[in-house]
Amino acid sequence: MKRVKVSNNVIRRLPRYLQKLDELGESGVDRISSGELGRQMNLTPSQIRQDFSCFGEFGQQGYGYNVSALRAEIAKILGMDRNFTAVLVGVGNIGHALIDHFSFQNYGVQLVAAFDVKQDVVGTHIGELVVRDMKSLSTVVEELHPDIAVLCVPKYFANDAAKTLVSAGIKGIWNFTNVELDVPENATVIENIYFSDSLLALGYYLSERMDEMSKTVKNHPVN
Amino acid sequence: MKRVKVSNNVIRRLPRYLQKLDELGESGVDRISSGELGRQMNLTPSQIRQDFSCFGEFGQQGYGYNVSALRAEIAKILGMDRNFTAVLVGVGNIGHALIDHFSFQNYGVQLVAAFDVKQDVVGTHIGELVVRDMKSLSTVVEELHPDIAVLCVPKYFANDAAKTLVSAGIKGIWNFTNVELDVPENATVIENIYFSDSLLALGYYLSERMDEMSKTVKNHPVN
Repeated sequence: MKRVKVSNNVIRRLPRYLQKLDELGESGVDRISSGELGRQMNLTPSQIRQDFSCFGEFGQQGYGYNVSALRAEIAKILGMDRNFTAVLVGVGNIGHALIDHFSFQNYGVQLVAAFDVKQDVVGTHIGELVVRDMKSLSTVVEELHPDIAVLCVPKYFANDAAKTLVSAGIKGIWNFTNVELDVPENATVIENIYFSDSLLALGYYLSERMDEMSKTVKNHPVN
Repeated sequence: MKRVKVSNNVIRRLPRYLQKLDELGESGVDRISSGELGRQMNLTPSQIRQDFSCFGEFGQQGYGYNVSALRAEIAKILGMDRNFTAVLVGVGNIGHALIDHFSFQNYGVQLVAAFDVKQDVVGTHIGELVVRDMKSLSTVVEELHPDIAVLCVPKYFANDAAKTLVSAGIKGIWNFTNVELDVPENATVIENIYFSDSLLALGYYLSERMDEMSKTVKNHPVN
């Protein structure tokens, strides 16, 4: 695929387009104009056209976008056709929830192994996976050479686990540990999912909203 | 607090500054220059100065930033001193993991109640919380008037739960359901934590990295 440098904001919007196009497809919508897509996604039509123009020409003047063709293009841009495989490291509550309820396969990723240190968990089944002993992490990763590690271990163990994974050849880490991992960026792509940052951002926006509302009340006092 | 419109990118960086300043404080660092802070966070000193300038003047020429004072300012900007309270709705794996392992209080939020529909879960304790019956959601929210709802219910129930919460006076929703909630934006602040979007973004960056590497291999063939 021809690659141009695309801004992170555009990349972060692609999964939202995918989700919307899936919804449209499920509702039987075959094609959609950039105006209507924008209305449904709170984006301007020109922003949508600009986003897609980063990757080539998808729409057609006067016709709009073919929903399933656009969906397929975005899926391809996101690497969903690359048959990525993943291992999950740390089967605590979060790890367990991901194995049980997160549809990795819907996003083109196959979960091939899970690991934990707790001996009462090792050997048990979660769905179709058997939990393996953390001691075998290097060996199994070198054998299965998965692309992605889903890192769900406790904080104090995050960097050790990450280093083991990178040494064993892991190319991407989906990091749930809330620790900024200290691994060389040129070797591995890190995607952090920081719960705390998200809650703090909510706190910011909520504070802002409350300040606005109290200002409005002050400016328009009830008589 | 005086409010200026601050870009989302800046707001999203604030929690990272907070985390870094906590680390520095724990290591006994009292003050830090924008240059050193930038080096440790992969940001340029001018970007750091620009980020903070949105909120006023924190640093001092030739001295740098006082770590604990800057930490306190950022915490305040993020609303961490506002004693937000929260209820958690849906005690499945994710909800359970959040109650058990996520330190809400570290981010200035107090969890005051949890709800589920499953009758075998209702009435059980998780940490200091007793799980309440989902049927009592409206009543309890109207009584306790928490600021935030942590939404961890199954997808099909997400919008119904959100509507009940908004009607009962919830001002912010921390949304773990992967459903784009259909509630009026002027009434409620929504912060989505979309696992799927994060994994898809990882897939994008990983694909990009792989394409770069295969290009490098092609351009420099092994003789």
